[in-house]
Amino acid sequence: MTKFPVRFVLFEPTHPGNVGAAARALKTMGFNELVLVNPKCEINGVARARSSGALDVLLAARVVTTLEAAIEGCGFVVGTSARRRRLTWPEFDPRECAAEVVAASAVRPAAIVFGAERAGLTNAEMDRCSALVYIPSNPEYSSLNLAMAVQILAYEVRFALGSSEKPVDSESIPADVADVERFYAHLEKVLLNRGFLKSAQPHALMRRLRRLFNRARLDVKELNIMRGILTALAPDVVPDSSPPEDRDVAE
Amino acid sequence: MTKFPVRFVLFEPTHPGNVGAAARALKTMGFNELVLVNPKCEINGVARARSSGALDVLLAARVVTTLEAAIEGCGFVVGTSARRRRLTWPEFDPRECAAEVVAASAVRPAAIVFGAERAGLTNAEMDRCSALVYIPSNPEYSSLNLAMAVQILAYEVRFALGSSEKPVDSESIPADVADVERFYAHLEKVLLNRGFLKSAQPHALMRRLRRLFNRARLDVKELNIMRGILTALAPDVVPDSSPPEDRDVAE
Repeated sequence: MTKFPVRFVLFEPTHPGNVGAAARALKTMGFNELVLVNPKCEINGVARARSSGALDVLLAARVVTTLEAAIEGCGFVVGTSARRRRLTWPEFDPRECAAEVVAASAVRPAAIVFGAERAGLTNAEMDRCSALVYIPSNPEYSSLNLAMAVQILAYEVRFALGSSEKPVDSESIPADVADVERFYAHLEKVLLNRGFLKSAQPHALMRRLRRLFNRARLDVKELNIMRGILTALAPDVVPDSSPPEDRDVAE
Repeated sequence: MTKFPVRFVLFEPTHPGNVGAAARALKTMGFNELVLVNPKCEINGVARARSSGALDVLLAARVVTTLEAAIEGCGFVVGTSARRRRLTWPEFDPRECAAEVVAASAVRPAAIVFGAERAGLTNAEMDRCSALVYIPSNPEYSSLNLAMAVQILAYEVRFALGSSEKPVDSESIPADVADVERFYAHLEKVLLNRGFLKSAQPHALMRRLRRLFNRARLDVKELNIMRGILTALAPDVVPDSSPPEDRDVAE
């Protein structure tokens, strides 16, 4: 069983009906933690009607302005991908994703992030994810409704909870995403200072490094080792105390 | 693969939105055969709107007056059951159901029958079914929307059809293990030189670092970046073997 709730994050949803239906989808599968990032619609009568008996989940949905706030405290974050991308994230199918979510949420909250109805997730959001999940669909019509995608993944996680076999490594506690961000900021500062990154264009290379380490899903000890290495190799570069803002997004 | 199409039968549906959403759910999963038994609603604008790009499937839906007509020609018929019943049908979970449907539809059409939104299937309809399928849900709120149930089963059948090969990222070429070893040797030398590793006991920590990077499965470019970072941060520590080629990525 998960010790922590699984968090379902809708990034900039645009249709109230989908938000309501997503709340219902969660509740039917036994979940209740819905987070809305910068919603582009109101939680109106349509949303309430579609939530049906899950009005409590809908009304308790946390509304935040950034993805970072939505996934605060999480260890494993997986983003939904509308189509197969040639990128460097591990890509799970919904079943594999569910097994990973169940295993990860034994030690720290896990989050599944759903992109906006039309736009999906952009690279900036995916950079916060350790993996992507792709729901197999008809290549000629892959327009899966947002709430349907939520339903399928909630169903798969519930199903996985019934038959969880993934061993949990109790000694490996996933690092907090905020601490991982601090590591990236520290790393970027060191690389800029040593001239490995040019201050004009650090983004492409930092993105690659993020993907590498996100993919590895650093645990707490490993993160400390990496921070320690940075300090040992560049003792004169003092890390900033607070995590960076989303600089990538502004580009 | 199935030789025959899988038929999705809605028994006396009452909400146009659900019928439209069910059409969309089918089409996203690559199916197109929708049958409506004695519908209690019109296929109106709401239905059309919710069908989205699956209007063709909605408009091609066959409308019949009896379940018998709907399942004509079928070999295997499975009925959805809102809750576990102590009855004499075999009861599958959605995954088992999908496997049965795929196997059966190789030789004859198979059908999945969904009951009305509130009433579900009565014994009279279940008498026409070879088996029941039960979608696991929250015992305290099991009110799964009809179209959501269609989506989950359509998804499971598609999944069972085995169309989920992993995508190949042609731009990401896994690093040669020998090059990865050179990276580890380089990293160890740098960490020893900077006093991060004690020369007496470098093994435990190097093992952790190996595990971290092995887990990430470095590709060629990423390996070059990591080697480049080591050189930038410790230019005075010369690796024992020659570094990999293609330094061009480090910019």
